[in-house]
Amino acid sequence: MKFLFEILKQYSVSGDESEISTFLLQYINQRKNYWNVIPKIYFGENFHDCILLKFGEPRTAVFAHMDTIGFMARYNNQLISVGGPEIIEGTKLAGRDSLGEINCKLNGDENEITHDFPRGIDSGTRLSFAQNIRVDEEFIQAAYLDNRLGIYTALKLCETIVDGWVVFTTYEEHGGGSMPFLIKFIQETSPIKQALIADITWITEGVEFHNGVVISIRDKFIPRKKFIDRIIDLAKESGIPFQLEVEEYGGSDGREVQFSPYPIDWCFIGAAEENVHTPDEKVSLIDLAAMLNIYPYLMERL
Amino acid sequence: MKFLFEILKQYSVSGDESEISTFLLQYINQRKNYWNVIPKIYFGENFHDCILLKFGEPRTAVFAHMDTIGFMARYNNQLISVGGPEIIEGTKLAGRDSLGEINCKLNGDENEITHDFPRGIDSGTRLSFAQNIRVDEEFIQAAYLDNRLGIYTALKLCETIVDGWVVFTTYEEHGGGSMPFLIKFIQETSPIKQALIADITWITEGVEFHNGVVISIRDKFIPRKKFIDRIIDLAKESGIPFQLEVEEYGGSDGREVQFSPYPIDWCFIGAAEENVHTPDEKVSLIDLAAMLNIYPYLMERL
Amino acid sequence: MKFLFEILKQYSVSGDESEISTFLLQYINQRKNYWNVIPKIYFGENFHDCILLKFGEPRTAVFAHMDTIGFMARYNNQLISVGGPEIIEGTKLAGRDSLGEINCKLNGDENEITHDFPRGIDSGTRLSFAQNIRVDEEFIQAAYLDNRLGIYTALKLCETIVDGWVVFTTYEEHGGGSMPFLIKFIQETSPIKQALIADITWITEGVEFHNGVVISIRDKFIPRKKFIDRIIDLAKESGIPFQLEVEEYGGSDGREVQFSPYPIDWCFIGAAEENVHTPDEKVSLIDLAAMLNIYPYLMERL
Repeated sequence: MKFLFEILKQYSVSGDESEISTFLLQYINQRKNYWNVIPKIYFGENFHDCILLKFGEPRTAVFAHMDTIGFMARYNNQLISVGGPEIIEGTKLAGRDSLGEINCKLNGDENEITHDFPRGIDSGTRLSFAQNIRVDEEFIQAAYLDNRLGIYTALKLCETIVDGWVVFTTYEEHGGGSMPFLIKFIQETSPIKQALIADITWITEGVEFHNGVVISIRDKFIPRKKFIDRIIDLAKESGIPFQLEVEEYGGSDGREVQFSPYPIDWCFIGAAEENVHTPDEKVSLIDLAAMLNIYPYLMERL
Repeated sequence: MKFLFEILKQYSVSGDESEISTFLLQYINQRKNYWNVIPKIYFGENFHDCILLKFGEPRTAVFAHMDTIGFMARYNNQLISVGGPEIIEGTKLAGRDSLGEINCKLNGDENEITHDFPRGIDSGTRLSFAQNIRVDEEFIQAAYLDNRLGIYTALKLCETIVDGWVVFTTYEEHGGGSMPFLIKFIQETSPIKQALIADITWITEGVEFHNGVVISIRDKFIPRKKFIDRIIDLAKESGIPFQLEVEEYGGSDGREVQFSPYPIDWCFIGAAEENVHTPDEKVSLIDLAAMLNIYPYLMERL
Repeated sequence: MKFLFEILKQYSVSGDESEISTFLLQYINQRKNYWNVIPKIYFGENFHDCILLKFGEPRTAVFAHMDTIGFMARYNNQLISVGGPEIIEGTKLAGRDSLGEINCKLNGDENEITHDFPRGIDSGTRLSFAQNIRVDEEFIQAAYLDNRLGIYTALKLCETIVDGWVVFTTYEEHGGGSMPFLIKFIQETSPIKQALIADITWITEGVEFHNGVVISIRDKFIPRKKFIDRIIDLAKESGIPFQLEVEEYGGSDGREVQFSPYPIDWCFIGAAEENVHTPDEKVSLIDLAAMLNIYPYLMERL
């Protein structure tokens, strides 16, 4: 889990993913020769800060977003949200502007968020939850498990995958915008019919800790029943613990697959967390293990 | 109207359109040799559950959505909406899950919808309004006139159309998502400049029963005035009764034509109904006749 | 400013931009031979009412929307909004329907807007704020500075620009819809990596009159930090007065660049106004001058 700890410490609020992207790229270049198949790597200004890995002859793509929720300094001591962070008085925030490092606390509520940093912060500066990683026998708890666990899952998958795209996306927490050009590039380079979204969902009255990875039948958007049924059949076969989710709200990179101009089926698959979009996101290690296990299983068989 | 009755009995809640699609395809294959022009038929996994018919040299496409609103079983005895069904205590619902047929009633309200089926229903199971078709001298009343009447209109058009695309779409009631790939396919196969949306709208203070088919000047979205003016001029010429609609809300497959990356004009044309998105949708037979008549007239002249 | 006064007098509520488009095209054709570079001009039914000018070898595109907010006649004496006009009792409105010129006043509020014209107005007729242009030493005040000043800026840019696209768009005030096909055309004709949105923003607690043109770090949507940083660096170098904006709400044609299937960076740059979407929009002449100056500077260097 050393690598997971490292990426948990990288800040990458939506729109500012260049550092995490460079970091992942270094990791990929160091490790790729040890992988089952060496992927073709696409990155750079033509892909903004996204990274695409093409293994073998893809039938399916896995998408994991690199960005996180956070805050942006506005005027005076005001903050506004990036994505949908929980607004909890006293939360520790960290960042950096032209004058140096920033460590401060969040004040106020949804109507007016402010910081207590003794000097003004440059307008447009991004602030993140100060990171605090905790692991015990049962749980991992930290800021940004959503979606560092998705990235971690995608990179573990890279070790054994034979055929498929593994794609690291940007802006997901704030409305999206990289998926359309990524999907277009994929479809014009080595097209797919299926997409899996490696991301983190919510503990609810129907989704409980330790019951396995979540296969989402729907969130705000509804993937095609035929494809979901096939995934569920494979999951049953696999023996890997999983649970089904049926939610009315929420979205993911899957939304942009749904509305893309290509007939691509999609499904969201990931562990569930408590304390969503807070510094205390909490995921069961059993569920994380199931998430790590199900991706190689599905990618081989879909 | 025998065929209309048959399609009114098919369930096809958004995301689960494979059965209605297969049914329509059979019908099309049985009837196409009696049509004025035999269309080229596109369907199958490359089109998900959509069907495209290409007649002659298309200038215009007609889009009719195959899906309906409905409900999805969540956890315990909870239901959540698919599309925007009216939540009316006591409404009869029908469906099927791994344990067999389901017939139950809806309880609760918008805040918490439940069913009264004596056993649990598999998570993700779709439920539809139990169908109850009523026809008298003046009206047809049933669930899912929206958009079975649009499908019916599109298939009647097939009998005489010379040039044009007739397209059966999915997911429309729940945000859409098939239109982007359908439009792309059309534009790359035999492109069009114009689209008509064969769908059902609302009785309001300005749209009344028996006054004819509705030509919509706007709903939430606003088509280009130039095109609407041309449609209205043709409608006047035709002698077919019509009325104009100007609404602030609502949407259709036209929305996705508007936001497509092609300069395609669009217009929504269809009969108006009372009791929208309930089991008691009600349409005037005069308005339905006008809807059936205006499509061939416009498709020939646009 | 004579030309600015002329375009301020043209009505062009979203969806009905054909007259302003024809007017701009005439102007472009009259003036283009005096410009530094003669552009290639794209217009006509394949572009709906939009106009694209291609100068030299473009790296960047400037987008300015031609449409304005306004109202549409519904039934009886009702009006509904096009875009988001402020609803102010007594506001003078103007338009024209099949029976002739219309001059009337707005009554009511957001819940029910009506007009006081003594006869009914054809359903679907567009009404605009009656124009009243006021200029003094410090300010220009009129209806539709948003976005006549953007058009004016774009056309002044045409005089000196060497390389770049200058594009006049439609529907922006009402959800957009021309940008997707314009961007596709640009990328398939002479592709770009960068887009500037020439439009008008808001005076707020952090954006003040006379402090220069506004460079927007974000509105509802968030452009990529890397690109914004580069723009800000150039703006500093230029010596042209500018101020930074960080807003939680609002949108522009930039939204559709963000969600386009091409990796194009974007930034909103324009003067700020008071009395947004009223007949009394008010802009500082200093800020307008800065807007006029920054576009040629950036287009040369980006």
